Amino acid sequence: MIRFDSDYMEGAHPAVMEALMRANTVQTPGYGEDPFCARAAARIREKCALPDAAVHFLVGGTQTNRTVIVSLLRPHQGVVSADAGHIAVHETGAIENGGHKVLTLPSAKGKITGAAVEALCAAHFSDPSFEHMVQPGMVYISDPTEIGTVYTRPELEELYAVCRKRKLPLYIDGARLGCALVSSVCDYTLPEMARLCDVFTIGGTKLGALFGEAVVFTDPALAADFRYHIKQNGGMLAKGRLLGIQFEALMSGGLYEQIARHEVALAMRLRRGLEEKGWEFLVDSPTNQQFPILPDALLARLEPEFGFSRWQSMGRGMTAVRFCTGWAASEEQIDALLAAVGAP
Amino acid sequence: MIRFDSDYMEGAHPAVMEALMRANTVQTPGYGEDPFCARAAARIREKCALPDAAVHFLVGGTQTNRTVIVSLLRPHQGVVSADAGHIAVHETGAIENGGHKVLTLPSAKGKITGAAVEALCAAHFSDPSFEHMVQPGMVYISDPTEIGTVYTRPELEELYAVCRKRKLPLYIDGARLGCALVSSVCDYTLPEMARLCDVFTIGGTKLGALFGEAVVFTDPALAADFRYHIKQNGGMLAKGRLLGIQFEALMSGGLYEQIARHEVALAMRLRRGLEEKGWEFLVDSPTNQQFPILPDALLARLEPEFGFSRWQSMGRGMTAVRFCTGWAASEEQIDALLAAVGAP
Amino acid sequence: MIRFDSDYMEGAHPAVMEALMRANTVQTPGYGEDPFCARAAARIREKCALPDAAVHFLVGGTQTNRTVIVSLLRPHQGVVSADAGHIAVHETGAIENGGHKVLTLPSAKGKITGAAVEALCAAHFSDPSFEHMVQPGMVYISDPTEIGTVYTRPELEELYAVCRKRKLPLYIDGARLGCALVSSVCDYTLPEMARLCDVFTIGGTKLGALFGEAVVFTDPALAADFRYHIKQNGGMLAKGRLLGIQFEALMSGGLYEQIARHEVALAMRLRRGLEEKGWEFLVDSPTNQQFPILPDALLARLEPEFGFSRWQSMGRGMTAVRFCTGWAASEEQIDALLAAVGAP
Amino acid sequence: MIRFDSDYMEGAHPAVMEALMRANTVQTPGYGEDPFCARAAARIREKCALPDAAVHFLVGGTQTNRTVIVSLLRPHQGVVSADAGHIAVHETGAIENGGHKVLTLPSAKGKITGAAVEALCAAHFSDPSFEHMVQPGMVYISDPTEIGTVYTRPELEELYAVCRKRKLPLYIDGARLGCALVSSVCDYTLPEMARLCDVFTIGGTKLGALFGEAVVFTDPALAADFRYHIKQNGGMLAKGRLLGIQFEALMSGGLYEQIARHEVALAMRLRRGLEEKGWEFLVDSPTNQQFPILPDALLARLEPEFGFSRWQSMGRGMTAVRFCTGWAASEEQIDALLAAVGAP
Repeated sequence: MIRFDSDYMEGAHPAVMEALMRANTVQTPGYGEDPFCARAAARIREKCALPDAAVHFLVGGTQTNRTVIVSLLRPHQGVVSADAGHIAVHETGAIENGGHKVLTLPSAKGKITGAAVEALCAAHFSDPSFEHMVQPGMVYISDPTEIGTVYTRPELEELYAVCRKRKLPLYIDGARLGCALVSSVCDYTLPEMARLCDVFTIGGTKLGALFGEAVVFTDPALAADFRYHIKQNGGMLAKGRLLGIQFEALMSGGLYEQIARHEVALAMRLRRGLEEKGWEFLVDSPTNQQFPILPDALLARLEPEFGFSRWQSMGRGMTAVRFCTGWAASEEQIDALLAAVGAP
Repeated sequence: MIRFDSDYMEGAHPAVMEALMRANTVQTPGYGEDPFCARAAARIREKCALPDAAVHFLVGGTQTNRTVIVSLLRPHQGVVSADAGHIAVHETGAIENGGHKVLTLPSAKGKITGAAVEALCAAHFSDPSFEHMVQPGMVYISDPTEIGTVYTRPELEELYAVCRKRKLPLYIDGARLGCALVSSVCDYTLPEMARLCDVFTIGGTKLGALFGEAVVFTDPALAADFRYHIKQNGGMLAKGRLLGIQFEALMSGGLYEQIARHEVALAMRLRRGLEEKGWEFLVDSPTNQQFPILPDALLARLEPEFGFSRWQSMGRGMTAVRFCTGWAASEEQIDALLAAVGAP
Repeated sequence: MIRFDSDYMEGAHPAVMEALMRANTVQTPGYGEDPFCARAAARIREKCALPDAAVHFLVGGTQTNRTVIVSLLRPHQGVVSADAGHIAVHETGAIENGGHKVLTLPSAKGKITGAAVEALCAAHFSDPSFEHMVQPGMVYISDPTEIGTVYTRPELEELYAVCRKRKLPLYIDGARLGCALVSSVCDYTLPEMARLCDVFTIGGTKLGALFGEAVVFTDPALAADFRYHIKQNGGMLAKGRLLGIQFEALMSGGLYEQIARHEVALAMRLRRGLEEKGWEFLVDSPTNQQFPILPDALLARLEPEFGFSRWQSMGRGMTAVRFCTGWAASEEQIDALLAAVGAP
Repeated sequence: MIRFDSDYMEGAHPAVMEALMRANTVQTPGYGEDPFCARAAARIREKCALPDAAVHFLVGGTQTNRTVIVSLLRPHQGVVSADAGHIAVHETGAIENGGHKVLTLPSAKGKITGAAVEALCAAHFSDPSFEHMVQPGMVYISDPTEIGTVYTRPELEELYAVCRKRKLPLYIDGARLGCALVSSVCDYTLPEMARLCDVFTIGGTKLGALFGEAVVFTDPALAADFRYHIKQNGGMLAKGRLLGIQFEALMSGGLYEQIARHEVALAMRLRRGLEEKGWEFLVDSPTNQQFPILPDALLARLEPEFGFSRWQSMGRGMTAVRFCTGWAASEEQIDALLAAVGAP
């Protein structure tokens, strides 16, 4: 069976595993206060051209989203998100469990706009009952989005201008950030993106690490006492060095970008192959998630041999499914899938 | 520098690392629904002689304690704990952040008694203002305790009898469980202990894993919907297989017990060495944490060369410190420490 | 100025004030454990024909909704509500602050259907990622709804059948329950409604009391330890007797129904008057809230003399506004309003 | 039966009831945005000599404590309190339910000292594991305390100096504040006390109101968005005017002080009477709660005729009990109690 269910079907990129093996018997202090984490953070600050950024490492995405968001909001505030946002749909209410409403906006292709955030804020503060409603307190977006689309620079600029005007921290969930940055449509660099938000993550789990998310606060004042929050939310790894070792490896010699390019290139190979055969897609994704619309009968035939996720029924016997390429995906696997799918 | 600060100063036991390497490119489903986790859970059920137990794997201790406790309590209930309990002191209020008071009992040598729990319950329910006070809802102990002591079988039996009478689930935090079970004072086996509580953990982080805690619900009904709770509390690892791979390795061929015996044997070597030189101890610990009372001047001399934790000032220039032995500790390291400490 | 902003613009019905005065120097125990509360609860049980119901009294609506809902849900569960539901919109995220997501369903005329709840549950439990999503844990409706509409008996029966099938407690927020029960469209009695849900409230604040909501658990098992929850959520009044005194008065001699009929009769007088003049309404409300659609220019002229709430802009210079009639509203006030509004 | 169980055994002082009756049919906006609340707040600002203070009104004490505390803390912070503090013992864990640990200090006669707070902070921030522990975030005291004692001016000055140094808001729970201020030992005025803290309450429930606590933020910046918090925590009364009407009455013509003096005078009559007979007391209380130590046999005889609270068993057949005098207590009631108690 060949799995395209997600980008976390295998372990870590060999270079990451080697780094873990190499460091295995080195002794360090615990809880992320070790030289590996320090070096990894320094490399990230350098890559982002943010010498003063506060960089922290956590284990998983839901944990990271929860910890960042509860650390930034006051109790009466909520986080603005696309209705398709990961925090709104697929984190078992972790944000609400932390005490905060997710204020959802309808999303086009997974994205929200500055105009929609401004309209939400204007409506809130002009309502005579505003104190009876949750106050917008920050904005969450994911880039790439949950359906693989990528924010453009003008979109981020418009959104961040509203956020600054409304004093709402903008948080970018970059679980697959590398794939956005190397995608053909991306019109900004990492340092440029870092200047268009207040906090963002660089996801490791889906780009070659065993696990790990780096959180970058572009303004270190927002990260005050953040380690208390990590501990309280169960994200402080005793052997915190494991995060530093992995991120040091990923951030060295261009490995992170190399993995991202690999994932995206294979996804593009899949997309082109399906397009050439005449299949249509739910969305035009330039990153490592592809959402072709396939007949249910075909899906039933594919399922014993290929792993994928059913995303959305399109009616009339057709379903949009997700194929995802990870660091270990190969051209052979893609070609096997294309052969099995065939033409409509 | 030789570090005895804690038992998480290095990576994982070589056999664990080998297992991770071996499985690295195998594809599996995510979120712990993989064959490695299934096999690891089966081995744990077998070792506990609990064929129906529900077994789950989480990443870290605070995360595990928080998730288990919030899953078992209703909002008006609190968890009874020793005042020295990890959840009461060193988890940044994770339990309170989850909505629940930690109801502390004074502890003798880190332990609480069934009689004290019964007295707390009797006082609560006989108070005319009982509804104005937090209701005892479950009991938390750690075994070994935070200061290395081990519950005896009669102590557990007395405690569990009270818990059953009062309908309070008993939860044993076994972050260093292996060290308790192999200690010279332990008068129960794992299956016997498993019958004296409702849920317990088998800690991996401090016994040779990179990370990981196995949670065992002896009554699977208590684990209903537990995976939702894991996800909500940020503990569901995308590559959940990492936990299964590690625990399968630890639970095979007696590796877990072997590591535990190694840790305890080295701690006993340290203890005997210090005792022979004439030093006294804060507590009589039969496990891998030792708490000698040493002069501050000596500690200042040791600090550049040896890692340890200052535990408690004893006055008159003496301090109780903690030395901890992990899977990678060696006789040479212990002997170097003994030589450096010298005699009073 | 004549206020129709809401039904809490004045104090209490004279009979309620008299009861408070009469009891003022009587000594009773605190916290609702007094004879007034006991008698009020007994009358409510009798009126509901539920001799075993658990009846509690709280001060306000948001407090009551929060307390009931957090007492019934486990942490990973959410409460299903109309998207226009009070808990979803106008309680400053009290439910989320209590840890739970409000799972909203689109509402037609403020109501949700059993079919929609069933579809939500079916979708949840058939989703392979169900554990990554909030589990439906109970259902909340308001009757009358926030826009004055009233559930019919078949609607309640369909909804409750789904709730029982899915084991979801059904909670009816009856902040204006009296107005629903006396409305021309209501096809059930209070005892009949009480059998079609698990817990409901009988609102006092908007029907002649100074404040107060009676919570009726039709199954007393659901109310286990409910007084702890009241206290924890800040709803236990020291002089709890105040609630008992008021509800005893309201529940005696048909006062509650009399007030409800008065409120609804005046609202119908307003509605007929406006209809006769040719105005249209946002919704066909048979209760004490009316939502005519009026020109903005007219509203500007009315505002110095009449209190009302702007509800929703309808475009083209028209706005739907809310007029609400309380226990103290009079025919003269209605007629003054009608005269001031005039014809289109 | 004559009840001294607490100071909330009756309704409200006649002047308060009259004010409620007088205002009963006046129409006002809801939710505390009415002229009564505005005037009451103005009077309080004047009495406190704090023209810029933010004043809000809530219904009950637990609700007020919860709302104030959660509005001031970040998630990783706790509130420092005497171990006998109301929030630590008798609010069903409302603070923990709001997410925060109560960091208790041993109390002498119900009070804590600046030195103890400073020691707690020093210990916290010098601990290498400080991020694993709850950070002190504010300080809570009650004045008078739960056992009737009153802070002195030097005690408040020392405490507040530490709070300012450590940037911890100091919150004084004044549920019975009037009784402290009129007590024979009190060496400060209300304006003087107001300058020695950041937020305090003036309790109404126990001093002649039906219910109500006024919250005074001496620095209005701390009250930013406080009305959202009131609503979220279920404390926003629809007929919020009821709080304004009552506090306007209490704060006019010296009524609040007159009631306080009455309560304290009767408590002193009780105390002197018992002292003259030779009884001893648990604590030397100068306010309206008295804690004589009486034989259990005597208590059993008193119970059918007199209400009181059993406070603490003293051993050897003796129990400390609490007698509390409210606005409606009379000299005749005190004398009847003294006659019934007799001499040892």
